[in-house]
Amino acid sequence: MGNSFGQLFRITTWGESHGGGIGVVIDGCPPRLKLTEADIQPDLDRRRPGQSKIVTPRKEADRVQILSGTFGGKTLGTPISMWVKNEDMRPEAYSEMATMFRPSHADYTYQAKYGIRNWQGGGRTSARETIGRVAAGAVAKKILREQFGVNVLAFVQQVQKLTAKVDANTVTFKQVESNIVRCPDQTAAEKMIRLIEKVRRAGDSVGGVIECVARGVPVGWGEPVFDRLEADLAKGMLSLPASKGFEIGSGFAGTLLTGTQHNDAFRMKGGKIRTTTNLSGGIQGGISNGETVYFRVAFKPVATVLRPQQTVDVNFKNAILKARGRHDPCVLPRAVPMVEAMAALVLVDHALRQRAQCG
Amino acid sequence: MGNSFGQLFRITTWGESHGGGIGVVIDGCPPRLKLTEADIQPDLDRRRPGQSKIVTPRKEADRVQILSGTFGGKTLGTPISMWVKNEDMRPEAYSEMATMFRPSHADYTYQAKYGIRNWQGGGRTSARETIGRVAAGAVAKKILREQFGVNVLAFVQQVQKLTAKVDANTVTFKQVESNIVRCPDQTAAEKMIRLIEKVRRAGDSVGGVIECVARGVPVGWGEPVFDRLEADLAKGMLSLPASKGFEIGSGFAGTLLTGTQHNDAFRMKGGKIRTTTNLSGGIQGGISNGETVYFRVAFKPVATVLRPQQTVDVNFKNAILKARGRHDPCVLPRAVPMVEAMAALVLVDHALRQRAQCG
Amino acid sequence: MGNSFGQLFRITTWGESHGGGIGVVIDGCPPRLKLTEADIQPDLDRRRPGQSKIVTPRKEADRVQILSGTFGGKTLGTPISMWVKNEDMRPEAYSEMATMFRPSHADYTYQAKYGIRNWQGGGRTSARETIGRVAAGAVAKKILREQFGVNVLAFVQQVQKLTAKVDANTVTFKQVESNIVRCPDQTAAEKMIRLIEKVRRAGDSVGGVIECVARGVPVGWGEPVFDRLEADLAKGMLSLPASKGFEIGSGFAGTLLTGTQHNDAFRMKGGKIRTTTNLSGGIQGGISNGETVYFRVAFKPVATVLRPQQTVDVNFKNAILKARGRHDPCVLPRAVPMVEAMAALVLVDHALRQRAQCG
Amino acid sequence: MGNSFGQLFRITTWGESHGGGIGVVIDGCPPRLKLTEADIQPDLDRRRPGQSKIVTPRKEADRVQILSGTFGGKTLGTPISMWVKNEDMRPEAYSEMATMFRPSHADYTYQAKYGIRNWQGGGRTSARETIGRVAAGAVAKKILREQFGVNVLAFVQQVQKLTAKVDANTVTFKQVESNIVRCPDQTAAEKMIRLIEKVRRAGDSVGGVIECVARGVPVGWGEPVFDRLEADLAKGMLSLPASKGFEIGSGFAGTLLTGTQHNDAFRMKGGKIRTTTNLSGGIQGGISNGETVYFRVAFKPVATVLRPQQTVDVNFKNAILKARGRHDPCVLPRAVPMVEAMAALVLVDHALRQRAQCG
Repeated sequence: MGNSFGQLFRITTWGESHGGGIGVVIDGCPPRLKLTEADIQPDLDRRRPGQSKIVTPRKEADRVQILSGTFGGKTLGTPISMWVKNEDMRPEAYSEMATMFRPSHADYTYQAKYGIRNWQGGGRTSARETIGRVAAGAVAKKILREQFGVNVLAFVQQVQKLTAKVDANTVTFKQVESNIVRCPDQTAAEKMIRLIEKVRRAGDSVGGVIECVARGVPVGWGEPVFDRLEADLAKGMLSLPASKGFEIGSGFAGTLLTGTQHNDAFRMKGGKIRTTTNLSGGIQGGISNGETVYFRVAFKPVATVLRPQQTVDVNFKNAILKARGRHDPCVLPRAVPMVEAMAALVLVDHALRQRAQCG
Repeated sequence: MGNSFGQLFRITTWGESHGGGIGVVIDGCPPRLKLTEADIQPDLDRRRPGQSKIVTPRKEADRVQILSGTFGGKTLGTPISMWVKNEDMRPEAYSEMATMFRPSHADYTYQAKYGIRNWQGGGRTSARETIGRVAAGAVAKKILREQFGVNVLAFVQQVQKLTAKVDANTVTFKQVESNIVRCPDQTAAEKMIRLIEKVRRAGDSVGGVIECVARGVPVGWGEPVFDRLEADLAKGMLSLPASKGFEIGSGFAGTLLTGTQHNDAFRMKGGKIRTTTNLSGGIQGGISNGETVYFRVAFKPVATVLRPQQTVDVNFKNAILKARGRHDPCVLPRAVPMVEAMAALVLVDHALRQRAQCG
Repeated sequence: MGNSFGQLFRITTWGESHGGGIGVVIDGCPPRLKLTEADIQPDLDRRRPGQSKIVTPRKEADRVQILSGTFGGKTLGTPISMWVKNEDMRPEAYSEMATMFRPSHADYTYQAKYGIRNWQGGGRTSARETIGRVAAGAVAKKILREQFGVNVLAFVQQVQKLTAKVDANTVTFKQVESNIVRCPDQTAAEKMIRLIEKVRRAGDSVGGVIECVARGVPVGWGEPVFDRLEADLAKGMLSLPASKGFEIGSGFAGTLLTGTQHNDAFRMKGGKIRTTTNLSGGIQGGISNGETVYFRVAFKPVATVLRPQQTVDVNFKNAILKARGRHDPCVLPRAVPMVEAMAALVLVDHALRQRAQCG
Repeated sequence: MGNSFGQLFRITTWGESHGGGIGVVIDGCPPRLKLTEADIQPDLDRRRPGQSKIVTPRKEADRVQILSGTFGGKTLGTPISMWVKNEDMRPEAYSEMATMFRPSHADYTYQAKYGIRNWQGGGRTSARETIGRVAAGAVAKKILREQFGVNVLAFVQQVQKLTAKVDANTVTFKQVESNIVRCPDQTAAEKMIRLIEKVRRAGDSVGGVIECVARGVPVGWGEPVFDRLEADLAKGMLSLPASKGFEIGSGFAGTLLTGTQHNDAFRMKGGKIRTTTNLSGGIQGGISNGETVYFRVAFKPVATVLRPQQTVDVNFKNAILKARGRHDPCVLPRAVPMVEAMAALVLVDHALRQRAQCG
């Protein structure tokens, strides 16, 4: 259980790192949307390993194939099944994983929960699992863009102690993609890249923060009291591997202000009700208010490090894990499309829910 | 839509601030649990207005009544319907709310979404809505405690800039309840109370952070990949009014560490696999690992302040809102049982889901 | 679990025969629908005991109260909570039920499943449970009528061996309500009433068939492959107490025809695609085709009879149940509004789902 | 929407007749179940075209492949993805389908609902869609058999006017599979086969009734009030292509009895509470009572016939459809595994739900 996401634009993902492949089924996609693999592949390319010197080198082309749900290049309204075949399978590279529980990985909890696990490459707990989300997210982003005028964009805002200055209202996709760390502040980006390279050489890893903005969201998306827009965004983000925190608008920093300082005054502007500030992050009472939606997601440093670590083996004996081979010094560049995907999935789902109830 | 929470222990809440009442239906509660109103009322008392000098003075006894689902003081396995009648109704006190959209409240977004709203006391957007959750949460906490040995406990960890030092592994309910701000660090608590009183007198409000711990959670709760335990906790917390952020374990601060620093080493202890540190917050790969689950929730300062504010009226004209009457200078003491309730609802739901799939 | 119905127009019912009351919460009702108790009560009156000499005499006014979700006589888009207080409670009349399992009732299965049951009046298994559905169904019927031009109408088509001749395309509500058995064929109705009276005097009971028609359903409602319109109708009908069968369009009789005989030819008519016959029952491939939707529901004879019956007691001993007091000789007249309610709930749910996906 | 079935053992199917393939994802399968393609293929072989002279001759091997969710021949508790590649694709054979709406098929309703359709081989409306269900049903049957001691078995009970005599309590799989029509009454089977051959030669088709029995179901499965066991069975059955009716236990015939005749008396037998008759069909109050569950499903004659038919084309002009090529004279033999699959899916889902709530 737990492998589906969304109520009306509902995705179900499947697949292990070293099984037949990784895939997703989308149920509820509106019909007559133009859709081919070319709409999906770019986001998978942003997600895939080996795309630059600062990410994990696993060699996977990750070519997506649409198996159902389209006809003549358009969606049918029926389930869209997409998958990527696993190629770079080296189960022998994971022999330690068969016998030891890697610290801060999910080896132990999966074993304890299910009484069995696919230890090859982490099985279902591998970041490869996110292929399905990213593929479905690409469809969601397309619908948002073409049918609702909504743009979803994420970027790396912080790597360890290095922070970037980015204007949520003006940042562009081109700026984000202009460097391999996906930070639109070029000065910060260079420092981040250097840091990650240094960390990689040390066999260690770093985490950081991804910020995501959704511009053009109309007033009215979000379903209180439980399915508030920010609640579903929070769930989507915390469902990503390695994420540890979420904040919307002013977030944790907002707790330092008084109500008078924090409130977003309403003013008429261009015939519309607008707020003069946006500490709310574009959502009030769980419903979008027409301002830019923005939020931040914390990612811990990747758990795989190339240093000996204390752990326990499958026979319940203390042991030392000597990691070897390749590792991912910083998940952030690859997590950017994941964050966008989950945000887009939440937003399109709420767009359809709003249409259902309120016409 | 959006007024239900949980998959197997599923609650549906209803009610507006100034309608017939506020209630909740629980579907999926295990049968034969001893349950009377006396199990519910204490948490409602911790939630209700007027309980101390630092919270909103609205006079509501908030007496809960169980209408169905029990027989001879035990649950039947059928839906448990509980409600609280609205009593302190003063629609005239809210006349401005009929004509103006209060800044950083949900008046405008509800009006825009639904084309109608109950402006009396905020209607569905009132914090009174949380009565249903807190009542259901009391049932969830009882099940967790009696049937799974799990204790859920929340406390105020920060008020504006004032922070408390609290040990998540040893803090007690008695410590939390020993002062009106619900902060177990007595020195910090006194400062917090003084701050809130000062802010109240100034007609302003402050926010802060609530921490929540769940001790005794067994290995194996959580349903990857989307219904990870932390993902559902995040959703539950961000569904609370005024919450702006969530972090599990090391959270945002964890982004400053390297992987080597952040990883929780496994060691055998008392015949069990344990971690020597707990930066993971008791969850790895979306599944509880047997350590204490702990997380933090950011709450913004309450939007109602007794100062004139720029806003827009229902005729789309700029206007000045002159608030009057009573206000809540700090939602945190009353939000403590809300956080516990949502945490307990998530945990009991996952306990049942684990039982369903893995026996 | 299992006390909610519908995806987007979602109801949750609660209540036992002899508890605080019976109620329902509707989540997902479109906003700005005019709605007061006067819209609900008539269907509850059609459902309630004591309405005529051929139904059970239990004295219940069954006055409905709307507790939330409306403001100024219009729906808010928030949950609509409705309830009916239990009044005619005579637990002493049910003393045998405390100690014996009534044949073909649910006493035994509830006891076995939950390990506990409210034996007073049957608890949750009482037909009083249907109050919540009928109340919600009245709202659904109003939406269908006012916003989609769809009329839902049920009637008694058969009582034991007595059958009525009714034209599904022209039968009116007035005809149905013109007699106490709710059969629009007046000649058959008189015979049915005499049969039921005779059966009542004999302390026995009879079953029969209710037919339901939905006229004005537009093309396009229904969500293959699992949530076909007829599949959800079948589920709704088989969820009614005492129902044993469902058939859509030609139903079981259609199995006697060949494909050539059974196919509904398409022809243009009034600029629209129509079928010349309607053996499909208005649904093809799980989706409404613009013709009248009609189906039949079989109800077994009510299990309560005033004759001694072999059974088993709660101590697992063979015993004789000597029923006494009042009984319901035929559930059909009161089941008519139940069938309409479930049909309307299915239809309005699919109307919203169609709007969500296809705009 | 509508392509998922089940709450806890949840399947999502995808695929069109002439797309990349047909598949299913199972979410919620218990871990550590032995499972390979060899457990699935036999039921697909019973479902596939070309298996005998009395079914449609489309040539498809329908070889299933498990893509995820197993490791070392056992289930992991993660999603199980299975698919069958489409092979016998002859879009040219369907040129009429591109321009005309076949009577009593779903061409028109799909076109009207979605504004687009894959007309090749019927696209999603093809009976090939049922591959996913049958594959998932094979897993469900294995779980029921091995973990709960429940056997699910369906057979052809009626073809047009020909009926079989079968004892629901003793019929065996071997008897069912001993002839190509899957009717365990050999005398009736021979007549049925002759009838179907005659009908096939005439270019026509016939329908009939499939009966299904589930033996060994323990007391306690079913979730009133809406998710009664028979309600979910009814939904599952009416979600099958060409099904028009469902009846449980005494069904429509039960309406001819009085309550005294219809009630199933309880008696102690072998230390257990049993019923002396089983007109209830093994379910009382929506919950299984320990007796054999049995029900009947009506299937209309297949809509494809090799005779000219009046219809309408995609330009909204009256037209004549001259069918040609191959057709399926009777869906019943191939529908037997479909009925078993849906029954098993419902039962295993309720087994898990019972375990979740009642431990």
